[in-house]
Amino acid sequence: MTSQPRGAFYGVGIGPGDPELLTLKAVRVLRSVDWLFVPASAVGGGSYARRILTPLELPAERFRQVPINMSRDRSVAHDDYRQAAEQIVAELEAGRSVAWLTEGDPLFYSTFVYVLDAVQSLRPDVTPQIVPGVTSIHASAAAAGFPLTRLSDPLAVVPAAYGVEHLPQLLGEFATVALLKVNSSFDRLLDVLAASGQACDTLYVEHAGAPEQRIVHDLASLRGQKLPYFSLVLLRRRTEATR
Amino acid sequence: MTSQPRGAFYGVGIGPGDPELLTLKAVRVLRSVDWLFVPASAVGGGSYARRILTPLELPAERFRQVPINMSRDRSVAHDDYRQAAEQIVAELEAGRSVAWLTEGDPLFYSTFVYVLDAVQSLRPDVTPQIVPGVTSIHASAAAAGFPLTRLSDPLAVVPAAYGVEHLPQLLGEFATVALLKVNSSFDRLLDVLAASGQACDTLYVEHAGAPEQRIVHDLASLRGQKLPYFSLVLLRRRTEATR
Repeated sequence: MTSQPRGAFYGVGIGPGDPELLTLKAVRVLRSVDWLFVPASAVGGGSYARRILTPLELPAERFRQVPINMSRDRSVAHDDYRQAAEQIVAELEAGRSVAWLTEGDPLFYSTFVYVLDAVQSLRPDVTPQIVPGVTSIHASAAAAGFPLTRLSDPLAVVPAAYGVEHLPQLLGEFATVALLKVNSSFDRLLDVLAASGQACDTLYVEHAGAPEQRIVHDLASLRGQKLPYFSLVLLRRRTEATR
Repeated sequence: MTSQPRGAFYGVGIGPGDPELLTLKAVRVLRSVDWLFVPASAVGGGSYARRILTPLELPAERFRQVPINMSRDRSVAHDDYRQAAEQIVAELEAGRSVAWLTEGDPLFYSTFVYVLDAVQSLRPDVTPQIVPGVTSIHASAAAAGFPLTRLSDPLAVVPAAYGVEHLPQLLGEFATVALLKVNSSFDRLLDVLAASGQACDTLYVEHAGAPEQRIVHDLASLRGQKLPYFSLVLLRRRTEATR
């Protein structure tokens, strides 16, 4: 292994879908780096990230698509991250800079956390520069004018895979609950919510900030529909104190 | 009351402190509106928000500072918001556009939720355009390379005023807990955390993204110190599964 000179390694959050929700910092970094690594999972094959960056007109030859298997079998994903890390480390050691792109924020339900682990297991001295991003939670709330939190309200963020059966308890403890990636368990979520009897303000948003953004307040109207991966539900407990 | 023509009303998140963490959309809106309303609470008198915008070189005469009393006496704050709303509605009715600035995100522990309530109680037909922002949680995690969430990890966001005594229970249920505005209850937080016996990765950040940003991993070293309002603690439960 060589040491200096080495390229910089960035984790860059590119926001939830609207190119205008890129930060100035993300734009600067994306324009300056040698390589733009795009994790290409089964969902969209990296095209969602590429589309967000279209207005920047970055040279196509700077993008490198990296297959990441998002299956529940973590050992498959582990091998993919290791292979990605080997490519990244080779570029860094050749003095070229690499940005790993993630929708939303790089440290929040993102592939970046895993690729960083893999890079640092090869080269523990790689210190990333991380550019935070606007998340789909904030973009969804903004699109619908849905207040997330007031004063000392607590907020729970829960991927639906964590288990929608926890929902009644969560709504007892938290003023607002954000449920991410609800597509695969949406009808069960409706059942649990109805059974809980908890009165809530509700919001469903898919593709927040993107041209195909869809906002639905009446969750029950979505029963039985095929919903996309980039979808979330916000629930705010209705109490006298909230208005 | 007149109806059309009317100016647009914006809630604009300007991010946590680093001017480069402004979004392209925030920059566009801030450059285009007639009025930039800056809520000036006791904390900094609006100067923190003004400083974030310094590189944009916006004309000083477009800023309007609005006193907001953040005391626990909500009726005082209510009067302040009502007065701010009257000024805003007058401008909108005169056809001038108004942006209400907030650090972080406008719908997340922000004055915007309250001023919007007050504006809509005067003019229910005012529909705001809301520009989401990067929060201090994501900026703090990015500054320290602290993973917020993996896979199906749940995350709890809790202002310290909600009660640090809930912490042991929260750490039992949530992989990561973000505690906001910890300045006034920091030493009690240390006591509760020590008593819980829960092993955690810990991170304290003040003024995330700003020049005076300070990052501390050893929370105990901060005991007895006077901490600023813009401060937070991230706690991630240490388990075999997290690495």
